Amino acid sequence: MNLVESLRDIVGPAGLVDPADAEPLLSDWRGRYHGKARAIVRPSSTEQVAQVMALCARHDICVVPQGGNTGLVGGATPSEAGDAVIISLARMAKVRDIDIGNDTVTVEAGCTLQQIQELAASVDRLFPLSLASEGSCQIGGNISTNAGGTAVLRYGNMRALVLGLEAVLPDGRIWNGLRGLRKDNTGYDMKQLFIGAEGTLGVVTAAVLKLFPALRAHATAWVALESADAAIDLLARCRAACGDALTSFELMSRSQLEVVYQEVPDTRDPLDGASPWVVLIELADPSHEAPLQAMLENVIGTALEDGIALDAALPASEAQSAALWHIRHVVSEANVRFGTSVTHDISVPISQIPQCLAQTEAKLLNAGLVEGARFLYVGHVGDGNIHSIVLFAHAVWAQVTDRDARVDAIGTIVNGMAVQYGGSISAEHGIGRAHREELSQYKSDVELDMMRAVKRALDPKGRMNPGKLL
Amino acid sequence: MNLVESLRDIVGPAGLVDPADAEPLLSDWRGRYHGKARAIVRPSSTEQVAQVMALCARHDICVVPQGGNTGLVGGATPSEAGDAVIISLARMAKVRDIDIGNDTVTVEAGCTLQQIQELAASVDRLFPLSLASEGSCQIGGNISTNAGGTAVLRYGNMRALVLGLEAVLPDGRIWNGLRGLRKDNTGYDMKQLFIGAEGTLGVVTAAVLKLFPALRAHATAWVALESADAAIDLLARCRAACGDALTSFELMSRSQLEVVYQEVPDTRDPLDGASPWVVLIELADPSHEAPLQAMLENVIGTALEDGIALDAALPASEAQSAALWHIRHVVSEANVRFGTSVTHDISVPISQIPQCLAQTEAKLLNAGLVEGARFLYVGHVGDGNIHSIVLFAHAVWAQVTDRDARVDAIGTIVNGMAVQYGGSISAEHGIGRAHREELSQYKSDVELDMMRAVKRALDPKGRMNPGKLL
Repeated sequence: MNLVESLRDIVGPAGLVDPADAEPLLSDWRGRYHGKARAIVRPSSTEQVAQVMALCARHDICVVPQGGNTGLVGGATPSEAGDAVIISLARMAKVRDIDIGNDTVTVEAGCTLQQIQELAASVDRLFPLSLASEGSCQIGGNISTNAGGTAVLRYGNMRALVLGLEAVLPDGRIWNGLRGLRKDNTGYDMKQLFIGAEGTLGVVTAAVLKLFPALRAHATAWVALESADAAIDLLARCRAACGDALTSFELMSRSQLEVVYQEVPDTRDPLDGASPWVVLIELADPSHEAPLQAMLENVIGTALEDGIALDAALPASEAQSAALWHIRHVVSEANVRFGTSVTHDISVPISQIPQCLAQTEAKLLNAGLVEGARFLYVGHVGDGNIHSIVLFAHAVWAQVTDRDARVDAIGTIVNGMAVQYGGSISAEHGIGRAHREELSQYKSDVELDMMRAVKRALDPKGRMNPGKLL
Repeated sequence: MNLVESLRDIVGPAGLVDPADAEPLLSDWRGRYHGKARAIVRPSSTEQVAQVMALCARHDICVVPQGGNTGLVGGATPSEAGDAVIISLARMAKVRDIDIGNDTVTVEAGCTLQQIQELAASVDRLFPLSLASEGSCQIGGNISTNAGGTAVLRYGNMRALVLGLEAVLPDGRIWNGLRGLRKDNTGYDMKQLFIGAEGTLGVVTAAVLKLFPALRAHATAWVALESADAAIDLLARCRAACGDALTSFELMSRSQLEVVYQEVPDTRDPLDGASPWVVLIELADPSHEAPLQAMLENVIGTALEDGIALDAALPASEAQSAALWHIRHVVSEANVRFGTSVTHDISVPISQIPQCLAQTEAKLLNAGLVEGARFLYVGHVGDGNIHSIVLFAHAVWAQVTDRDARVDAIGTIVNGMAVQYGGSISAEHGIGRAHREELSQYKSDVELDMMRAVKRALDPKGRMNPGKLL
């Protein structure tokens, strides 16, 4: 029996992807990475995943786990060698348990994020992870990439939302770590290794996730600022005044807003004047009666008096609030219309953001890499995570001859400067294929050695998602 | 040069503990575990720790790291073999950095928890970890045991409060992972392995810790309940109504309160009647103006109307509130006066608490292990963590002949039942020497194999804190 027949025996005909339908699973959704595979299976149970993994172990075959395939760093695309089996988790989408008294759900890896958000809402709870791709990304992928998104300031990354895991190890054994416990000090917390491992240690097949009280009160503000320093000052004031109700604190540069207002017809600035920076602030609370509007008016009023804020708009209706968030949400679309973006996903200590951005701009200008381009910033300030964008208008980019080298050179300066300021070259997107080579420049040998030792300990033959991360 | 001379060369005379002063470091503070050591050093810098570790590596000598030595499971006590060197972190107590804009501090492992709490308060921030031993326990020990305490419901365990770590590996190399980042997806999150490893993978020497806004408003309530089920219902109502302001939710059984009122003269029940259970609820918020009292009155009022709560006391002054917390805080003292406690530190999914406790009582009664004893419960309900206590009056215990066997037999039933309900045998105290043998009964072979593989990967010769955890 050849490999494909053996796999079909395990997963059944419905679990084997026809080569004619394979293309979407062999490249990433943006089309930047392409690969080949010996076979693609869609098991429908953990037992089937385990059998596939054991088969691959016996025949020394590499395995690439794949979720919704919405990643940005090529982590789910197999290599060109075509020697790997892809295990897609798409058919493992059962909800195994809802425990309202424990505020947890137990779900299989193939559930989409949106499915889990809706599941939580159906029992009057919140699952706070929220991403642009939530309609198609899968929770197993969110776990394997330690996904971030727009609610990290309040609820943390994916890592903070996982209580238990089930995973199939490279040798085909099933690890049942599906504990719904908030406290458990009985040895090394093995789930932490699988979270963010990008499928290089095994296949995550199910998880116990934390739920939170549903949010019933909201308040929004748009605040004009003179500097990024003022944003950090205002963040501290909001945290002190509004406590955990502070859910979002998004920074945008005027340069970014100008591109939005120019490219997206239904947007307009809520304020007169053209402050160099703005922040969009959102408060939320489970209680209808929380006085969020008053809290926000209070803290912003004081910031205006103290000269920290230049001006502010506090929408009185949900429609006005939605119009402000619309500006934030169409940023990527506006930039695509305007030209070519060279984007980065850095994080630095919050206090270092202003200096890091200023120094990086200066260095890029000195290096002569950004003639005719604009510097745009969109950031989750409370997480220290800034999407730092060098935007070339179509006409300018058309005259750039060394495009790949230019993108790399810009990235080297932006990422190098972030690390110099104690930061990270990948705050939320991961390493995958995209940053694998760079990693060794920015991590210490000691840390890389530890990571390799852990990899060898759990995947001695290096068969899990080869060519990614390490 | 013999070992002690070589060690003195590294740490200086002040860094070597005189054998005459060694006794307190060779047993745990409760005097339950005793051991011997070849030498005890108190390095004053990470560099010195690294040199000591390298020396021990060259000579194949085991190392026992020790913090404030306040643990409950013997994790910091060397074995009787006397072949290990103890590294005490007590002299490494420098604050390396305070970054208010990033809401972080970087501190050395030997800082006491209280020192860090005071440091945070001095910059108008909160470091939320809080334990009975906070005056003497050290942050390195808190990290190595993933300490819990009374603020976990709102702020999480120690694990949730650490952003970065510095550790010395078994071979003497220094890993500098002192990053103050809230988002960093660049490979396996190595710090997660050291948190809760009980010193079995290396020596934690410094950490970057998260700070939070200082809390300025508080509200307290004492609520009488018919059942543990009602406590879980009330917890859900408080979470929905009060959101993140809910800081503590402590359950006590009437049997526990009776012992307190009998043994501690300055305590008295704030309510008439004798409900089987009570919960002590605390709300807190950074804003002076947060309407916590009204929120609490509201949610408890509705619970009284709905028959969930039997009665309630909402103190109007800080003194009254302190009197309620005093009852909670003197629980251990009262039990010691009354008799001998056989205590356990289990956690289960919150929804399983009532059934698990009832079934455990029944099984203990059936087994004939608890004649003349009382069942007492004190629990962090929101964490699923119940300290389940079998209390024997002095006169009763005096007649028990098989004391050690009795304690073990009770523990086997209590812990076994917790695991049967999806729980943990050590919610917050760790494994150490105390639970090492039990661990293999309650963890799956797959999980134990993974833990051993990680141990071998980072400490191939098994020289770090041998005889603990694994």
